[in-house]
Amino acid sequence: MNNINYKRIPLHIGIIPDGNRRWAQSNNKEKHEGYEFGVEPGIKLYDTCLNLGVKELTFYGFTTDNTKRPSSQTKAFQKACVDAVFSLINKDANILVVGNSDSPVFPKELLPYANKRVNFGKGLINVNFLINYGWSWDLNYCLTDKSRGKKTSEIINSLASSEISRIDLIIRWGGRRRLSGFLPVQSVYSDFYIINDYWPNFKTDHIYDALNWYDTQDITLGG
Amino acid sequence: MNNINYKRIPLHIGIIPDGNRRWAQSNNKEKHEGYEFGVEPGIKLYDTCLNLGVKELTFYGFTTDNTKRPSSQTKAFQKACVDAVFSLINKDANILVVGNSDSPVFPKELLPYANKRVNFGKGLINVNFLINYGWSWDLNYCLTDKSRGKKTSEIINSLASSEISRIDLIIRWGGRRRLSGFLPVQSVYSDFYIINDYWPNFKTDHIYDALNWYDTQDITLGG
Repeated sequence: MNNINYKRIPLHIGIIPDGNRRWAQSNNKEKHEGYEFGVEPGIKLYDTCLNLGVKELTFYGFTTDNTKRPSSQTKAFQKACVDAVFSLINKDANILVVGNSDSPVFPKELLPYANKRVNFGKGLINVNFLINYGWSWDLNYCLTDKSRGKKTSEIINSLASSEISRIDLIIRWGGRRRLSGFLPVQSVYSDFYIINDYWPNFKTDHIYDALNWYDTQDITLGG
Repeated sequence: MNNINYKRIPLHIGIIPDGNRRWAQSNNKEKHEGYEFGVEPGIKLYDTCLNLGVKELTFYGFTTDNTKRPSSQTKAFQKACVDAVFSLINKDANILVVGNSDSPVFPKELLPYANKRVNFGKGLINVNFLINYGWSWDLNYCLTDKSRGKKTSEIINSLASSEISRIDLIIRWGGRRRLSGFLPVQSVYSDFYIINDYWPNFKTDHIYDALNWYDTQDITLGG
């Protein structure tokens, strides 16, 4: 019902689901306990975006830097990411996990989806998860024989994340106004919307607010 | 006087001086007439940041994409950029211009500073201008023999903009919330502050507002 009023729906939305640990602390829990409360919001967001006609979603799971945190936290966000991916399997999403899968911190349950898209059901939407991702790992992928001598327009094909398209809108929960290494190439022209609520407090109105704002933006792509 | 209260001053601030054309239109001028009113604000901003102890400033001049605009606009922003650079020469800034200087749209007056830093006076601050810059031009620089096989930590040295350090805080005028291709690698962890006023309406309070906000941010660099 809400989408009737939008002039345009972003084709591709990037999701930075931040604030799980701060949410835990503000709810008298240990920091690591926050992550499991981030799974259900992801499913709700997926359903909302599917209904709106969004064609691609990318979730920022965890980075190689994140794994330097205490092991209770690392285990907790690894599990939450696995649960999130599995919650969308057998729905109508084409799933892709992008990240360094050669490392022991990459969850082995996700290896079937590592850097290879797997289609499910009607394949209505592409859903990408960045898992054990690093911006410099992503860019360094271009430093190979295969990518040498390519033209400017081809650089995006030389990235580890080359299966992920340009992002129209990035929504970040938890109030911080930064990319934190999220897909630097696909984000060059993205509009950036910040929600102060922590990710476990996700509500569908956040998406509608973001889209209402996005509707007012003038998209120029540098022209 | 204002800097006494800051807990920390960003070492490096990125400046996206947007809104010159919208300012011109809202002042009954032709779009291209807005750019010349963006030079003086740059000098004021430089003086303010120098006083605050900022060590590096990067101004987003114009991009290769911008030069596809009508020639009256292209000429006007080329001139404004040249005037801005020359207004800081013989002050205490070390000047560097980063951009594709092999193209005829690169102003020839700036060739002495193209991709080579030139020190002036006491050299108190590094000031960088992106002139005929392109994010993909910058990244493609790494697709050379010289950069093959480098470690993750070394990628920043493979960029065309490798002389420009990581950016702590990006301030954008004109209300848009996007990077528009501004130094994708140096921006991965930057905090992003938006000012709704158009750039020609710059006032030093904008900087103080940005620094007051920056003071409240928790810097984690992904940890």
